This record gives sequence, C-alpha cells and structure tokens, in this order.
Amino acid sequence: MTTTQKPTETLVAELVEIERIHRLLSDYAFHLDMNHPDEIAALFTEDCYVAYGPDFGAEGREAYRETLGGIGSFFAATSHHVSNIVVDFGLDLATATVRSVLHAWHRYTKDRPDGHFFGQYHDELVRIDGDWRFERRELRAAGVVDFHVKKQIPIGRAGS
Amino acid sequence: MTTTQKPTETLVAELVEIERIHRLLSDYAFHLDMNHPDEIAALFTEDCYVAYGPDFGAEGREAYRETLGGIGSFFAATSHHVSNIVVDFGLDLATATVRSVLHAWHRYTKDRPDGHFFGQYHDELVRIDGDWRFERRELRAAGVVDFHVKKQIPIGRAGS
Amino acid sequence: MTTTQKPTETLVAELVEIERIHRLLSDYAFHLDMNHPDEIAALFTEDCYVAYGPDFGAEGREAYRETLGGIGSFFAATSHHVSNIVVDFGLDLATATVRSVLHAWHRYTKDRPDGHFFGQYHDELVRIDGDWRFERRELRAAGVVDFHVKKQIPIGRAGS
Repeated sequence: MTTTQKPTETLVAELVEIERIHRLLSDYAFHLDMNHPDEIAALFTEDCYVAYGPDFGAEGREAYRETLGGIGSFFAATSHHVSNIVVDFGLDLATATVRSVLHAWHRYTKDRPDGHFFGQYHDELVRIDGDWRFERRELRAAGVVDFHVKKQIPIGRAGS
Repeated sequence: MTTTQKPTETLVAELVEIERIHRLLSDYAFHLDMNHPDEIAALFTEDCYVAYGPDFGAEGREAYRETLGGIGSFFAATSHHVSNIVVDFGLDLATATVRSVLHAWHRYTKDRPDGHFFGQYHDELVRIDGDWRFERRELRAAGVVDFHVKKQIPIGRAGS
Repeated sequence: MTTTQKPTETLVAELVEIERIHRLLSDYAFHLDMNHPDEIAALFTEDCYVAYGPDFGAEGREAYRETLGGIGSFFAATSHHVSNIVVDFGLDLATATVRSVLHAWHRYTKDRPDGHFFGQYHDELVRIDGDWRFERRELRAAGVVDFHVKKQIPIGRAGS
C-alpha cells in the first residue's frame, strides 16, 4: 500500500486482505504452539517450499507435514510472537509478499536450557478460493540463544 | 472476517472495530505497565470475569480492581507485548471473541530473577455505547520462566 | 480513531494511514536490524529530534545519521520487535501521535551478555508528500537487562 490515490473500494479491499494475512500468520503461530501439525500444513499450498534453515526444510505440503510430526515430543512448549508485518500485493490482490519479525521461545523435553529465536519470516502467499496460503515461507535469523538448530539462514545484515 | 463478499460499508465497519479492539488490548497493556489500576479496571464491564490462573482471578469489576492494588509495590517494572491478534465478531458487531499472544517481562521489588510469561489471552468483548470492554479475560500460559505465580491455566497444547 | 460516526471515506482514509504508519515503524526496525543507517535516516524529517536516552540523542537528520554510524561494529546483531501500536491523528491526517511497545534483543561484538530493552516508543509523525516521517522519536524504558546504555528515559510508571 504505497499510495492513497486509489478509489475507496480498492483501498478497502487491500485493508481487508491485509487483515486476513495477519490472521494467516497468527493461525500458523497458534497451531504451532498448540501442536496441531495438520492444521499447520493446511495453511500451505500443495507445492509449497518451506525453509527453516540452510539444511532444514521441505518441498511440498506432504513432505512439510512429515517434518512437523516431531514437534509434539521434541518441544515441551513453544510460544511464537509475530509482529512488524509488512505486506506488498501482486496484481489483483492474488499474491502477496510478506515480511514479519519473530521472537520464538522454546522449552525442550530434553533437559537443556530454553531456546530463543530472533529473526524474520519472508513469505510468498497466494489466494486460493479466497483463502490466503503460504506458497513459500523462509525463516531467517538475526540471532539465536541456546537454540537446537545450529545453522540458520541469516537475515543478511550489512557489514556483518 | 472470513469473506470479502460483503458490501464495502460492512467491511469498513469491521476493520474500524478491529482497530479499536487492538487499541483496547494495547491500552490494557499500557496501563498495566504504567501502574494505573483505575484505568485498567475501567476497560472491563461491571460484571466481568478475569482469570489470570486457576487459583487467581476475580468476578466483577470491583473485585477485579482490588486485585490490581498490589501491582505498584509487587513489581518494580513490567512490560507487556501483545501480538498475533485474531478477532471474530458476533452479530451486529456488538460482541467479539479475541485471541492474542503475550510476552510479559516482570521485574520484582523483591530480590529475585526477572520473570517471563509466554502465552495467550482469550477475551470476550462487548461494545457499550460504542466502546469495547472486556467482559471475560482469560490468560493461558505456554510456559513461564522464573515467574511468581506457580500455577497457570495451560494453553491446552495437544499431546502434552 | 475514537468514533464510528464518521463517513465511510473518512474512516477508510484513517485506516489506510494507520496501516502506512505501521509500515513506517516496521521499516525503521527492519533497517536497524539490517544495519542500513541511510535507510533509517531517510525515515526522519530534516529537523527531527531523536532521544534514545537522557544523554543520548540527536537534533536534525544529519546529526542523527552520524549517531547511526557505529551500529555495524558495536552490535553483532539486533532484533527489534514492535507491537501495541496506538495512533492518534491531528487535523487532516497530516500529523499523528503514536505510541508503541518495543522488545529489542542485542548481541554485542564485544564479549558480553546479550542485552534486552523493554519499553515504549513515543513518536510525533508528519506526512510529507504522502509519506509518513518521524519528526520526533523518543524511546522510554520499562526496564533493561544487560544493556549497554546505563541511563534510560523512564516510562514514568506511577508510584515507582
């Protein structure tokens, strides 16, 4: 949304879709913290690409769903906090590029310190039958504290 | 907001109320961090129900106001960070069910480590004379770190 | 936004500007975490006033830009999480007073513990040629943990 020189109907349509995209991002976090792998997978397209790290991701919803199977036993609890959401639409509000910021807290079932992740989600969304879905979701790290995944995709901070 | 097949006026009305609900949640957090118990209580209905834990809550605004009296001396400081807000409206935009996520940091006046709360607010709101108020607010924990309240209402994570 | 007794066009205009203000706050955080000092400075007015602490700030964009030069080498990484955004408009949507909440995580290049900042941004914004800019940005602390700046502007919590 870079200009207000649009007719009211268009602006309303954009704001409505932004709110629905916020909900998609919130639902993802909710179902992750609730250990609902089926509900998480349903938020992705069939041909999705998900990258949680340089060596850790999945191609396709079915493969992605499999990576979610261990959430319940690996973590005793998680809490995902998403903010700083920025949305840019493609043509006809049919696609969207979304950037957001994540602070995630993780308590492990193993006896080890809680892990923290600080970073960014970079998403490519598509609207299918009115519902927004993740076609591509990439998680990039600003930094981590006591986190179980050793290698992250960096946010690409300049000069560092 | 689950469809865009509504007339513009209706969609605008919903977006306006969502923004005002965000403000209610932000004002609650603000007045809590500022130690303004009267301003907090004024955000609740006269017959509100508030549950901060299985053994810790209040029925009615007056009783709730009394529980807020000790904030100033018990905490040296707090910071409440609310995100992932999801709003579902009842009929005529007169009521709303709201889910959000909280990270709260607490510094105690006693010499003990800072406490962290990670979890969810589940709210039932009503609109009275145009203003949104909490009729029911329940705080559920994903997990806590060095927190002073020993028992929490769990978020109900599957399989844990 | 304190009433819904406005014509639809006005309400839409306010919601559009609120979304654009959210983007300004998100862009500031993004460019800070990405170590983009020029992009940060471009979000401020020429005569801006920035206060990060009682003894730490700048008057004017040029002076402010100079304070940003050390970000790249002082921090190994940062992550700024902004939420609880509350917007109040001046006349004609030409100015806005904005309050938000910040959790910032800092990793230092020096060997010292990560620093956390919990607090509030208080902003005065102006709209110039359609774009929102910071005219005044003040950072107030609820509290800090292992933070490198020793003195903060307090949020002004009652009774503390």
